Amino acid sequence: MQYYSMYEIIDKKKNGQELTKEEFHWVIDSLMNKNIHEYQMSALLMAMFINGLNKKETAWLTDAMLYSGQTLTFEGQNVVDKHSTGGVGDKASFILAPIAAACGVRVPMIAGRGLGHTGGTIDKVESIPGFKTNLPLSEFKRLLTDKGVALIGQTKEIAPADKIIYSLRDVTATVDSIPLITASIMSKKLAEGANGIVMDIKVGSGAFMKNKSQARKLARSILDTAKRFDRGAVALLTNMAQPLGNKVGNAMEIIESVQTLKNEGPKDLTDLSLALAANMIHVAGVESSYAKSMKAAKKALTSGDAYRCFEDIIKEQGGDVSYIKDTSKLPATKETTEIKAPKAGYIKSLKTDEIGLLLTELGGGRKTKTDKIDFAVGFDFNKKVGDKVKEGDTIFTVHHHKSQVDKVTQVEGRFFKDVVKFSKTKVERPAIIIEKLEQ
Amino acid sequence: MQYYSMYEIIDKKKNGQELTKEEFHWVIDSLMNKNIHEYQMSALLMAMFINGLNKKETAWLTDAMLYSGQTLTFEGQNVVDKHSTGGVGDKASFILAPIAAACGVRVPMIAGRGLGHTGGTIDKVESIPGFKTNLPLSEFKRLLTDKGVALIGQTKEIAPADKIIYSLRDVTATVDSIPLITASIMSKKLAEGANGIVMDIKVGSGAFMKNKSQARKLARSILDTAKRFDRGAVALLTNMAQPLGNKVGNAMEIIESVQTLKNEGPKDLTDLSLALAANMIHVAGVESSYAKSMKAAKKALTSGDAYRCFEDIIKEQGGDVSYIKDTSKLPATKETTEIKAPKAGYIKSLKTDEIGLLLTELGGGRKTKTDKIDFAVGFDFNKKVGDKVKEGDTIFTVHHHKSQVDKVTQVEGRFFKDVVKFSKTKVERPAIIIEKLEQ
Repeated sequence: MQYYSMYEIIDKKKNGQELTKEEFHWVIDSLMNKNIHEYQMSALLMAMFINGLNKKETAWLTDAMLYSGQTLTFEGQNVVDKHSTGGVGDKASFILAPIAAACGVRVPMIAGRGLGHTGGTIDKVESIPGFKTNLPLSEFKRLLTDKGVALIGQTKEIAPADKIIYSLRDVTATVDSIPLITASIMSKKLAEGANGIVMDIKVGSGAFMKNKSQARKLARSILDTAKRFDRGAVALLTNMAQPLGNKVGNAMEIIESVQTLKNEGPKDLTDLSLALAANMIHVAGVESSYAKSMKAAKKALTSGDAYRCFEDIIKEQGGDVSYIKDTSKLPATKETTEIKAPKAGYIKSLKTDEIGLLLTELGGGRKTKTDKIDFAVGFDFNKKVGDKVKEGDTIFTVHHHKSQVDKVTQVEGRFFKDVVKFSKTKVERPAIIIEKLEQ
Repeated sequence: MQYYSMYEIIDKKKNGQELTKEEFHWVIDSLMNKNIHEYQMSALLMAMFINGLNKKETAWLTDAMLYSGQTLTFEGQNVVDKHSTGGVGDKASFILAPIAAACGVRVPMIAGRGLGHTGGTIDKVESIPGFKTNLPLSEFKRLLTDKGVALIGQTKEIAPADKIIYSLRDVTATVDSIPLITASIMSKKLAEGANGIVMDIKVGSGAFMKNKSQARKLARSILDTAKRFDRGAVALLTNMAQPLGNKVGNAMEIIESVQTLKNEGPKDLTDLSLALAANMIHVAGVESSYAKSMKAAKKALTSGDAYRCFEDIIKEQGGDVSYIKDTSKLPATKETTEIKAPKAGYIKSLKTDEIGLLLTELGGGRKTKTDKIDFAVGFDFNKKVGDKVKEGDTIFTVHHHKSQVDKVTQVEGRFFKDVVKFSKTKVERPAIIIEKLEQ
């Protein structure tokens, strides 16, 4: 391989010049081989952040990161992954993956753990005893080929450069960059063998993207990069101005997922899961139109095929299915406290990231990467944005331990101070899907 | 001290916001105590580079760096330092410091070693046997108080934050930033106790600043920062489109310095040294006008006072004065080779940084920080820009060792290929002083 100078590469990007494909590959190879220093990489990341990467450069960075580890490939085009930018109460993966798989899509899920206000898919599924998320990549590939779906945690084998780069970005204020986010997501999706991708880009107070304009930019960047790699893709901007569904908390979200897979879940969660699954079915080429894909998705849900597929996944990966058949066996607190409306009105808004932080306060999330998770604690919302409340109506129920009475008082105080706003006049219930963007 | 978050400080500067004085102090303190990581510092430096620092921020960074180590203070205002941005053949310090000292200015010289195409004051003076440049700071202060002048190498005691920051900038392409250069220079000058500063900002092919507009910006930034610290300052933009004086090489530059101190030196070097010394005398308040200061400087030179002061400095710092009294004792090569003009014409230009690199090829400079210097090798120019040459006239003489015959052939080849340009028509001799900028 040709030799490049890291100094000159930083200098070029600092001056706003375009880097070449070879330079991106050299940087990532050198990073993996420790031939460049972290302080050089962080300087380059800051120059990339401020001066940006164009579409070609974003694809080249993605390409270099994708080949930093192992890559999986599958026959055909029906391997389609969903990626969500993360939010509060987001358990849609547990519903859409079985729906899509039941319709013939192969769904590779490599998911993360929670940190700060956002929960993690891996944490939630681990509330089911026995479920293994650290399968070797060969087993992941076998499950995906044979069963159509597999769920594992982040692995060093897939795009390891992303992990190194992300830990640097995390402490150097270079996270919220559209091209860097794009390369991080796409390198992992392409390495895990996805032939298509459906993005769920959350917008609102509980999301990384606080406004539609930023969310649209990220969507366009992902769609464009997917196209450059000849992959089908669709992006939905979806509402994260309140928690998704009614339940927030690890085991409680598994319970709500099972309810939804039995077609007894909350409307927002059901609608979103169906829309994402239908797009996956369409991108996978299983059905020839979106309308037919949606019909298939609905059928998989109402027929019970999706629910049975979910049970299969749990079983295949070592989980105890009796906890799914009877979700009352899942970790639960003995105490609950109802938080009641101090006055009548309409719920105008909920500061969703604060709700995530309140869960963390109860032990249901992580403040630092090494914190242990309490699967049992959580919140169950009776009222959400647009709902009318009378004085004394229960807005939500806190599931907590006996020892946490003081914490609950704190949660209630912060909820009325920082999270909820009331309106005297009627408030529209927000639509879950804001916008769909296609290639 | 209040706690700040490095993440938030980087984030602010990344978004182009102004940092506070307290934040600059916290960053530098944390850097010194290793409470922040180098990769965070380099990300911040890149954000500072691209988004810039305003005048206030530049002064605050200077202030924080200046207090990262020891600070010297002197009674009165007559401690004035000169700083040159560095060039090829620049031995003016050896001439202006004795002139200014002979006129009653106290001149603290903390100088560097050469790297790449630029030579170092410390390397040059070390060609005099016995001369010590690693005096303790207490001895430096004593010499300066008693003798009016002292010359030492960079020390960890003075503005150590600069050394850490500079080594990061050096490998992350963040060197050529006006505010970062300003803080680097000014923190050291203020820490060493300078009450005034005279800047020699070189412009041209042998200089860091390749054009006047950049040089002027640096001058303005230095003058403004000095003013904020209530220090007098003057900046000269001077010509580095050809070597300063005729001799390039460590011992050879000491020889030319001695000639110039005897008022027998080349005109450009004499004029520049007198102008810088006169400005120092004026800034120090020794004389009430620049005209009077120049008169005093000329008198110190022609009377021999400056030369005697130079001998004193050498003696005081352990150097063998017999090498100054008889410069033929200094390291010298046995061989010389004259490089002759292949055609008649006028010398139009000299690519000065290339001349510095040719010296490095002969062993007279450093490619890497650990290289040893050969004091004896060098170049002696007979013809410079504007001079008329006939075919066969000697343009310069290479001083080299017997073993270096092949190197000399290379030097000659590169000189005619890359360094010199001829003109058929008359070329103006460039003025050494381009412009003077005052506060």
